[in-house]
Amino acid sequence: MQQLAGIAASNGIAIAKVYLLEAPDLTFEKTDIDNPEAEIARLEKAIEVSKGELEKIKAHTKQKLGDEHAEIFSAHLLVLSDPELIQPIKDKINNEKVNAESALEETATMFINMFKSMDNEYMRERAADIDDVTKRVMAHLLNVTFPDPALINEEVIVVAADLTPSDTAQLNKEFVKGFTTDIGGRTSHSAIMARSLEIPAVVGTKNVTTTVKDGDFLIVDGLEGKVILNPSDEERQAYEQKQAEYETQKEQWAKLKDQQTVTADGVHVELAANIGTPEDVDGVLRNGGEGVGLYRTEFLYMGKSSLPTEDEQYESYKAVLENMGDKPVVVRTLDIGGDKELDYLELPKELNPFLGFRAIRFCLERDDIFRTQLRALLRASIHGNLKIMFPMVATLQEFRDAKALLLEEKDNLLSEGVQVADDIEIGIMVEIPSTAVIAKQFAKEVDFFSIGTNDLIQYTMAADRMNEKVSYLYQPYHPAILNLVNNVIEAAHAEGKWAGMCGEMAGDPIAIPILLGLGLDEFSMSATSILPARTQLLSLSKERIASYKDEILSKGTAEEVVELVKSITE
Amino acid sequence: MQQLAGIAASNGIAIAKVYLLEAPDLTFEKTDIDNPEAEIARLEKAIEVSKGELEKIKAHTKQKLGDEHAEIFSAHLLVLSDPELIQPIKDKINNEKVNAESALEETATMFINMFKSMDNEYMRERAADIDDVTKRVMAHLLNVTFPDPALINEEVIVVAADLTPSDTAQLNKEFVKGFTTDIGGRTSHSAIMARSLEIPAVVGTKNVTTTVKDGDFLIVDGLEGKVILNPSDEERQAYEQKQAEYETQKEQWAKLKDQQTVTADGVHVELAANIGTPEDVDGVLRNGGEGVGLYRTEFLYMGKSSLPTEDEQYESYKAVLENMGDKPVVVRTLDIGGDKELDYLELPKELNPFLGFRAIRFCLERDDIFRTQLRALLRASIHGNLKIMFPMVATLQEFRDAKALLLEEKDNLLSEGVQVADDIEIGIMVEIPSTAVIAKQFAKEVDFFSIGTNDLIQYTMAADRMNEKVSYLYQPYHPAILNLVNNVIEAAHAEGKWAGMCGEMAGDPIAIPILLGLGLDEFSMSATSILPARTQLLSLSKERIASYKDEILSKGTAEEVVELVKSITE
Repeated sequence: MQQLAGIAASNGIAIAKVYLLEAPDLTFEKTDIDNPEAEIARLEKAIEVSKGELEKIKAHTKQKLGDEHAEIFSAHLLVLSDPELIQPIKDKINNEKVNAESALEETATMFINMFKSMDNEYMRERAADIDDVTKRVMAHLLNVTFPDPALINEEVIVVAADLTPSDTAQLNKEFVKGFTTDIGGRTSHSAIMARSLEIPAVVGTKNVTTTVKDGDFLIVDGLEGKVILNPSDEERQAYEQKQAEYETQKEQWAKLKDQQTVTADGVHVELAANIGTPEDVDGVLRNGGEGVGLYRTEFLYMGKSSLPTEDEQYESYKAVLENMGDKPVVVRTLDIGGDKELDYLELPKELNPFLGFRAIRFCLERDDIFRTQLRALLRASIHGNLKIMFPMVATLQEFRDAKALLLEEKDNLLSEGVQVADDIEIGIMVEIPSTAVIAKQFAKEVDFFSIGTNDLIQYTMAADRMNEKVSYLYQPYHPAILNLVNNVIEAAHAEGKWAGMCGEMAGDPIAIPILLGLGLDEFSMSATSILPARTQLLSLSKERIASYKDEILSKGTAEEVVELVKSITE
Repeated sequence: MQQLAGIAASNGIAIAKVYLLEAPDLTFEKTDIDNPEAEIARLEKAIEVSKGELEKIKAHTKQKLGDEHAEIFSAHLLVLSDPELIQPIKDKINNEKVNAESALEETATMFINMFKSMDNEYMRERAADIDDVTKRVMAHLLNVTFPDPALINEEVIVVAADLTPSDTAQLNKEFVKGFTTDIGGRTSHSAIMARSLEIPAVVGTKNVTTTVKDGDFLIVDGLEGKVILNPSDEERQAYEQKQAEYETQKEQWAKLKDQQTVTADGVHVELAANIGTPEDVDGVLRNGGEGVGLYRTEFLYMGKSSLPTEDEQYESYKAVLENMGDKPVVVRTLDIGGDKELDYLELPKELNPFLGFRAIRFCLERDDIFRTQLRALLRASIHGNLKIMFPMVATLQEFRDAKALLLEEKDNLLSEGVQVADDIEIGIMVEIPSTAVIAKQFAKEVDFFSIGTNDLIQYTMAADRMNEKVSYLYQPYHPAILNLVNNVIEAAHAEGKWAGMCGEMAGDPIAIPILLGLGLDEFSMSATSILPARTQLLSLSKERIASYKDEILSKGTAEEVVELVKSITE
């Protein structure tokens, strides 16, 4: 038995054989041929098989994850039907009498380089599509397997260097029992997706792909962040027992689904979920969410070739609000830029995108795009309990400007005779240090705060959380973070407003007692973290932890904080 | 007359004709030749003339700015003496019977592409050298002027899109009366250099290079950030008078050179200077600096092909300490990474370098490099009044680790029988929000704080100050910045420590009264800002401004702060 340590990214235990998701070997020799017709027939067959696979994957993705996620495969299918790409390959086979592999590669490379060199993100994205699709065709020409996680039809654990969002989107929960990767952290896309799919996952193992081989047997312990390779029978039995215990625990949790979250000393806090699409609402309700604390609206804008219309947006917002009933839904307005680009908008290339032109900064300049979203939200407001928040607010002026646009569009709608709810709360994400520092000034003007810890931590520590060389500085329990969080909560309460948190930290078992002690009103997390968090909160005494507040806030390091909190809550 | 608005980057008024520093037109036609010998002779002559110019520039730079700045020209001279580059050009002329221009270009392009494609920053840098040098040779072949700011020999105002550090290094103060650029801000390298050279400058005019032409007459008003093109006689006279008044004012300031900085209500504060090389000490003393508040040691590591030795560093530190006498000298340990790269160290390429692996983060990992610097500093400590500070500290642990290394090297030196001063203060830069937030915890362990506002502002506002799309968020008077500064000062004083500031903000006439009111002990700035700052401080009452402290800190926006401060100090 061999054991690898990684980062627990999604709870649960998975036991199955390895499915190694790696790039296939596509090397070939360029050869002369004397029967171009046969060679073209071979090419056409490879294309047809590829198209068939893509249709299957598209249908599968659409069913499992909705239209938006399936869009990318429509784009791939278009590439394979484009005569401007396919005809030149055939011409090359005919004219130069070379094998299909080399004609395919040379033609594809030419197009890829051409698109890549264009100063246009959309065109560069097309280069990636062509690359992706021609690799699939090449694999069929060479009779090597092109790994398609969507087509897995037996129980496996997927092992990969990293999983792209589109890889993760294809995972079929029925067969993929868990996954593990070389890189990534708790806040990487693949980790967030794993929790949303409720698949156990361990990321950041550094070298799982080079340690295992296809057919190996694997245990992924997403509770403790461990991966066990080819366990002995005894070990396997031990883990099967742990798995059964976890299932029992989940059943226990499920009983809390319709309960309120009330601490041992009788304080109610709200446990809400972070979602990305209307399809996620099911998971929120199934996991007993008391609301949506963060609805990320970027998915509406991604994987498309143009901006979503006001009506398209309205339908999505309406669906979420209606399905959530009278439970609160906090919608975050568009947060693009930084690491989130849109193909069809040419955003400037930036030296430090995380410190750049994104979110509210972008929306206040492109108020045409922003107004469309605000109108869609306002129209949807009558279908539920809507709250709106602006991301990346660094100055009071930005909040005032954004709110003014919102009220302007509200007036416009009312004068057009469109109904708009009267009591929409307007708040902000607190994810920039400046805003956390002067929360007192903000609290006079906003209706609520939602602390976005993923960004707040990286700016406060001046450390890119995606950069492995400095990721040790991503410290949620650093006393500076806790002091800022405390400052925000105190400022809100002094003005009779509420303060929530929608970063990963809100669902973290070590952070939860601290946040409760500091007085946080709303905890918004991955849907699957809600019931464990509720279980934990039921046994905590807010008053007892709050009595240690000054001591916690005056600690010098994150380690000292953790030690103290553990001693209080044990 | 036409007037352009820009950013006042360096005080004073300059009146002279335009010297447009722009890339020369190096287009040529490829032609066949029948006398290769004559063509090779033409090439050799162009190379010789280029070498002569580079020797002149090198000598000039060495004399004006010291050995380190002159190194780059040694590298350029080496390129022109390299037979591996020159011989292939001659061969091409001989074998292909083409003119020298085309042989030069084709050969150079080949080498440049080869070096560029290497995965090694040092080699890529060589590509830039070859590019630079062959352009100069090409200019001589084509008989077009290659602009050399170092060789200017009449009074001019240099106009350029931007000035690189090496451009600025070549400016001869005797003839270059001022400069103005299209891009850049008060904290860009060229602006800092202008203040260090005491040349009036206006940067960020957006389009001065396309507005003026060679021979135009220009006024650069570095006091108000204006550029006046072809002024009328009256305007010119008005500006000559303004210039004379400024000279008179400078004479007034000069009288304060040897005075202490004491406010109207009798409070002494220290006015120190930021320097980059031992040669800068002259300017500090000439401008009445009471110390060096920031000695940036990066120049020792830059423009070279290998790390500076312990002895080389020792000599530089010793020179600064000796020349400053008993005045304090605060040395910042190596701050590379981010926008400051070293050719010979392969630092990782990062998505967000400002949030990356730099400064103390780098030094704690590469403690071999760090220990060498610490030893050199400790050995130099007996020659003056040395204080050491660590940059980019985000956690107490980092400070503890860095201090432990320093004390270890001190013990090592003592046991080797080397003398080390006993009373070296050890402090930190406060430039990361986390450290400003928990300054209270840090104050128990550090001897002093020096607030680095350039970085502190950009992290607190989550806005890259070099990114024009978000530079409006670089707000020194934002109440969050002032609250953090106040927190640092209060924390220091509570533990009997001192707090200084070495960012651009410390020399800013609007910030100075605020900082005085908050209780800042030491203001470190460009040497030329010291006497104006002293003049301003002599007339301010600390007690009066301090009585408005709570009001200042509870303002909502930077604009509201400025309005209040102006009303108090008027």
